[in-house]
Amino acid sequence: MNNFFFCTPTKYVFGRDVENEAGQRIIDEGGTKALIVIGGGSVVRSGLLDRVTKSLEKAGIAHCLLSGIQPNPVDTKVYEGIKMARAERCDFILAVGGGSVIDTAKAIAAGVPYDGDFWDFFMGRKVERAVPVGVVLTIPAAGSEGSGNTVITRLDGLHKISIRSPYALRPKFALMNPELTYTLPFSQTSAGVADMMSHIFERYFTNTTGVEITDRICEGALKAIITEALKIKANPTDYDARANIMWSGTVAHNGICGVGREEDWASHGLEHELSAVYGVTHGAGLAVIFPAWMTFMAERKPARGAQLARRVFDIDDDDDRSAAIKGIERLKAFYREMELPTNLAELGIPDADIDLLVEKVHENKGTPFGSYVPLYPDDSRRIYETAKGV
Amino acid sequence: MNNFFFCTPTKYVFGRDVENEAGQRIIDEGGTKALIVIGGGSVVRSGLLDRVTKSLEKAGIAHCLLSGIQPNPVDTKVYEGIKMARAERCDFILAVGGGSVIDTAKAIAAGVPYDGDFWDFFMGRKVERAVPVGVVLTIPAAGSEGSGNTVITRLDGLHKISIRSPYALRPKFALMNPELTYTLPFSQTSAGVADMMSHIFERYFTNTTGVEITDRICEGALKAIITEALKIKANPTDYDARANIMWSGTVAHNGICGVGREEDWASHGLEHELSAVYGVTHGAGLAVIFPAWMTFMAERKPARGAQLARRVFDIDDDDDRSAAIKGIERLKAFYREMELPTNLAELGIPDADIDLLVEKVHENKGTPFGSYVPLYPDDSRRIYETAKGV
Repeated sequence: MNNFFFCTPTKYVFGRDVENEAGQRIIDEGGTKALIVIGGGSVVRSGLLDRVTKSLEKAGIAHCLLSGIQPNPVDTKVYEGIKMARAERCDFILAVGGGSVIDTAKAIAAGVPYDGDFWDFFMGRKVERAVPVGVVLTIPAAGSEGSGNTVITRLDGLHKISIRSPYALRPKFALMNPELTYTLPFSQTSAGVADMMSHIFERYFTNTTGVEITDRICEGALKAIITEALKIKANPTDYDARANIMWSGTVAHNGICGVGREEDWASHGLEHELSAVYGVTHGAGLAVIFPAWMTFMAERKPARGAQLARRVFDIDDDDDRSAAIKGIERLKAFYREMELPTNLAELGIPDADIDLLVEKVHENKGTPFGSYVPLYPDDSRRIYETAKGV
Repeated sequence: MNNFFFCTPTKYVFGRDVENEAGQRIIDEGGTKALIVIGGGSVVRSGLLDRVTKSLEKAGIAHCLLSGIQPNPVDTKVYEGIKMARAERCDFILAVGGGSVIDTAKAIAAGVPYDGDFWDFFMGRKVERAVPVGVVLTIPAAGSEGSGNTVITRLDGLHKISIRSPYALRPKFALMNPELTYTLPFSQTSAGVADMMSHIFERYFTNTTGVEITDRICEGALKAIITEALKIKANPTDYDARANIMWSGTVAHNGICGVGREEDWASHGLEHELSAVYGVTHGAGLAVIFPAWMTFMAERKPARGAQLARRVFDIDDDDDRSAAIKGIERLKAFYREMELPTNLAELGIPDADIDLLVEKVHENKGTPFGSYVPLYPDDSRRIYETAKGV
């Protein structure tokens, strides 16, 4: 087990109607005026934005609105938000939405008190201070409500880059009402499931040995996600299943699944290029990339894939390589049951420009990247080729 | 799943040599003078206290010392600590030890800024503010380094009572070096293992349904603890095994194993009387009480015990009652392998005064107490009788 620092200071407030606490929670954090960040019209149409602003008004919190955040959020909306927050003198950012909205809110939060260009933080500058961020979560997937990370795409050049801040960017609170997810299209629920599973996989495939407690938490969370996701497919308004999936998304990414070991994150790098170049949904892209990456690893270093197969998918096979392959088949079968794509064509990219993808991913991530088996351009190419499927 | 609030703001700093960060960490929390709280002489003899005070001196943190905290810590040491902290104007309490030392430090922390008798907090008064507490952990067991709880025994009348504070009493940081536990006597390691397992059991036996993610985390942690504890028995200086057990003790009690559901805690009530009346080690007492409590539950409400048996001990039996009983046998076999007592005689109490125990537990906990099956005096009596074994 490696040395580690672990702290999850976010206050998770979970259950029915908790969005109505937004105003009081902002007061508790010392806020007086909030920039509310939202995506498209669904939070308006559902009445959620109305309930949240009522809660703020009841608490005497002034507010202004930045709307129109899209999936794979872009730098231009961050600049817009920074300008608005400064002009309106907002001392709190409230994200009402899923990962893209929260990531945008965090980037704005880092940019507001910084004199330079916020993109500096994505180029390696450390975030020293930020405007506090709170979250009303509507899409369980990214785990951004409990992490210090944010991923933003720079439109000029299609660079999709993340910053990982252990402390400054973690939301102060996350209000999590599973009922808000009842009306998500099934494709969005299932992409979220693939996203949270991938957050666990990135931490599970490691060269660090002797971290049994973290392994078991990862394996248990994966088992729970698979069971509960299928319940949602059967009944989209199954409260407990929605609640389990929502909380699993947080557990998958708040750090508990990674303590004490090196993490990989190569698959996120490979997927980010698909999202940046082709605009695919991040979770759906991961459902395609991860089985391909795992297939590559089953040849090169099968041990972790074999343990995953045995402990999560109950594969009974003593040979590591063959066990790992069977596990991948089970994972793909689950993804298909969740109506997720498992190859590039199903993802809507029948003729992927693999040269461009390989070039971009190494430009953004360096050479090699990833840690379980560090990837060179030939490796990345092989994984993208495998992702084409048959 | 029930609504819940979850927050673990403690900064866990984990790995070799982290005790040397004590001084800097106190500065980061705004402290200038620390009351160091320790147990017996082992932290002196091992040189640990010396390393910690050197770290404080290097950081310019003045300090004074309260020593002599015993297992099942008592109110008199808390009064002594409050007096000392006030006289010396300490603005930080640093616990260097295990659960008893940390619990004493927390009770002092609550008492110092309070005008009345600190025991009021154990009688139900809410802790509004407290002096900040930090921890250098030497015994992984109680999980007190990551919880807001403290349990203190009032010598006058043998009342052993806990306070549970969701926020004010959580340590600011916990410095966790697994190497510090190499020299623990095996009996203390194994009592710690029984203690942390019991923290999971108290949360696992619940009437709340639909909390699969929390179930899986509990089951995974139990599996990890069993595997790693046996490795320590084989090799007390197995770093990774010590590290897994140390972190498992935190996971078991920082709340993640309980989110979204009612918890039980009847067994802790039953055990606390054994510790208060007979002075037995808390963890060893739990190794005796829990199988007896589970046996009672196998008759009255076997479902959760059956799931535990199937998922943690791989029992293949479709009948809930019979599966639960087989699970209890497996648990006891593990405890015996860890050289723990599994009945009152082995615990050193061949002629337990069961009338007194039943009277005391209901005096302290009320009637009924516990939630999975609320216990009345006849039930408590039956569990204590079962704990006698055969």
